[in-house]
Amino acid sequence: MAKPNLFYAQSGGVTAVINASACGVIQTARTHGDQIGKVYAGLNGIIGALREELIDTSKETASTIAALRHTPAGAFGSCRYKLKSLEDNRAEYQRLMDVFKTHNIRYFLYNGGGDSQDTANKVSMLSLKEGFPITCIGIPKTVDNDLPVTDNCPGFGSVAKYVAVSIREAGLDVASMCESSTKVFVMEVMGRHAGWIAGAAGLAAEHEGDAPHIIVFPEIAFDQSAFLKKVQDSVKRFGYCAVVVSEGAHYENGQFLADAGGKDAFGHTQLGGVAPFLANMIKQQLGYKYHWAVADYLQRAARHIASATDVEQAYAMGKAAVEFALAGKNAVMPTIVRKPGKTYRWTVGEVALSDVANIEKPMPRDFITEDGFGITPKARAYFEPLISGEDYPPYKNGLPQYARLKRVLVSKKLPVWRE
Amino acid sequence: MAKPNLFYAQSGGVTAVINASACGVIQTARTHGDQIGKVYAGLNGIIGALREELIDTSKETASTIAALRHTPAGAFGSCRYKLKSLEDNRAEYQRLMDVFKTHNIRYFLYNGGGDSQDTANKVSMLSLKEGFPITCIGIPKTVDNDLPVTDNCPGFGSVAKYVAVSIREAGLDVASMCESSTKVFVMEVMGRHAGWIAGAAGLAAEHEGDAPHIIVFPEIAFDQSAFLKKVQDSVKRFGYCAVVVSEGAHYENGQFLADAGGKDAFGHTQLGGVAPFLANMIKQQLGYKYHWAVADYLQRAARHIASATDVEQAYAMGKAAVEFALAGKNAVMPTIVRKPGKTYRWTVGEVALSDVANIEKPMPRDFITEDGFGITPKARAYFEPLISGEDYPPYKNGLPQYARLKRVLVSKKLPVWRE
Repeated sequence: MAKPNLFYAQSGGVTAVINASACGVIQTARTHGDQIGKVYAGLNGIIGALREELIDTSKETASTIAALRHTPAGAFGSCRYKLKSLEDNRAEYQRLMDVFKTHNIRYFLYNGGGDSQDTANKVSMLSLKEGFPITCIGIPKTVDNDLPVTDNCPGFGSVAKYVAVSIREAGLDVASMCESSTKVFVMEVMGRHAGWIAGAAGLAAEHEGDAPHIIVFPEIAFDQSAFLKKVQDSVKRFGYCAVVVSEGAHYENGQFLADAGGKDAFGHTQLGGVAPFLANMIKQQLGYKYHWAVADYLQRAARHIASATDVEQAYAMGKAAVEFALAGKNAVMPTIVRKPGKTYRWTVGEVALSDVANIEKPMPRDFITEDGFGITPKARAYFEPLISGEDYPPYKNGLPQYARLKRVLVSKKLPVWRE
Repeated sequence: MAKPNLFYAQSGGVTAVINASACGVIQTARTHGDQIGKVYAGLNGIIGALREELIDTSKETASTIAALRHTPAGAFGSCRYKLKSLEDNRAEYQRLMDVFKTHNIRYFLYNGGGDSQDTANKVSMLSLKEGFPITCIGIPKTVDNDLPVTDNCPGFGSVAKYVAVSIREAGLDVASMCESSTKVFVMEVMGRHAGWIAGAAGLAAEHEGDAPHIIVFPEIAFDQSAFLKKVQDSVKRFGYCAVVVSEGAHYENGQFLADAGGKDAFGHTQLGGVAPFLANMIKQQLGYKYHWAVADYLQRAARHIASATDVEQAYAMGKAAVEFALAGKNAVMPTIVRKPGKTYRWTVGEVALSDVANIEKPMPRDFITEDGFGITPKARAYFEPLISGEDYPPYKNGLPQYARLKRVLVSKKLPVWRE
């Protein structure tokens, strides 16, 4: 009987280190050639499985696979595609089973957030019913850091490092110009539901007066008068004010600042972006000259400034997923477990997929200062090790050299999938 | 007689490497203690001279001064302040002369763009008339790269590297998600009058289909239908489209896209930002899901990804300025001279301040492709060496460690300056 193959797919928004997890999966599988046949990767994630578009990773050289460790974004393609419930669309699950059976896939490793862990869990259960058991292992990934149980999520540490470095640098810029020019700088960061990323930017402020002076969290309802007062205080005390705002910042009634009914507080239509919204509010109310930045994808793709801890953990999660599969585990996800003690140490744990599927972990209230605009020492202690260490990609002619895959597809054997 | 002192000031928008020039000035002056007394730096640039707020750099340790080499922004403070003409405000020039005489300042090194070189030139001429000759040397600086004569300006190479790295990384992100999500990404970069920065982003595209697919230059009047057609072509061919747009992009009639009369093409009020403007235009006309980023100060402050060539040149300009002064030169500025040949080599040249003052160097038309949306091989050959090499700052706890100065002011001896 042919050795069982392994199917790996990337899911949801990509990160600076999701390919490091892919690298961990493929390199580990290759060292177990006696038990695992080929590693197939879904072209554009789970969509690739439905369409029977399977990338044969055995066609990629060892050096290309090694280069995945330092390559941002999803090298095989990812997707925003959530399988419906089994009841609502059994055909999709059936198709997955058909593709898996046809290509002798007995291992399914799904690299994503809460939705993906839910899908992997369902596939596992269905495969048992079908009498074609598939070992399903989740691999955690999300810049939002909102998966439960695991101490942190691969992808988060690098975006955290990016935002902290960026606000430190831009803060110095504003500080040096504020006497005669820009007095307020607003940087918008990701995190629609949780303020983990915004909070990490707070690491940049080590001494009194350092940027950022204000963080606007999605966990705290936006209080315009308290905010403006703090902006003014900062300008008076330090000469300038650097603000980090989460894209998920909202009013008491839940309305996002970024799309306050399509109108800002002054009746102007918004083209999106909470940073320009706040900057304009400050200009109107306080008269300060401002600049603003929206890092958007730059922050989650910034492999050039990735956290070495994050890269190491992303790789370890991919490696552990394969090892779990070979150890006969099923419907579980490896986790990062922080060991007690002052020196940061971590180890690999595990959790049942059913315990992480579709659960969001908010940032604890005691990570945020009482006034709602900063982070506490407890938050710093949590964040700091996650951004530690640098892991630079190789450069050529001044630019980082990222993996370019051949992405050779396996021959199709099934009818075309009608979407 | 006391040894003459040297006055150094930073001017205009700061960069990732202007402090490397300061480092070059101070370290070089310190090795010539027999000829130069103290190095004073203007607190907030030339404003510091007018207010008699002179930072005594001799109070900073050798290691702090060395750390300036890897510290972004203006460590002594910079300003946007242009002296009026001699006729319009002779009092300002007189005040400068008074401060210089009072503090025995015989060397004036002014680190800035074209305006600053103009000021330095005027001070030189006035000092001769006054019978208190001051040696005035300019030090080139501007992210915009628009100073004439010098092959390039310190500060440009690092912002060029930042934008090229950023669009490469964000491009990979969009490429991996475009099958089911974002299809168009627009990144706005600096350069209100010249497209040097936008052009440098083009270095990221090494193979066909690589980001960026479109660059919108201020040198080319914006043609909406040609632009939209190219966006559509890119999405059809490559699955996505990554756009880099200069903040100075404008219509044929000179109107900036970013502030098209306060209204965008659809009658919506703009809060600023040409990136959201273009992204919205694409959504309205072509229906593609989009994301956009505005890097703003992040790009010019990004010392973490500085070009090693840029750092080296910035330092060399500061060093050369002191050496020029000691060699008896006056009213000149060191320049970067590119030597002929395939391998990039450069040397230090010089130019009279009168030949660089208030002159802007536009990007040559033959750096831009015929369709107006890309860069030519000639442009690549020019840009590439300028972003070459990495020069990472030291890190601690995951964050770059930048110099923190004491900024001890010299005792004032003159009446308060009335502004």
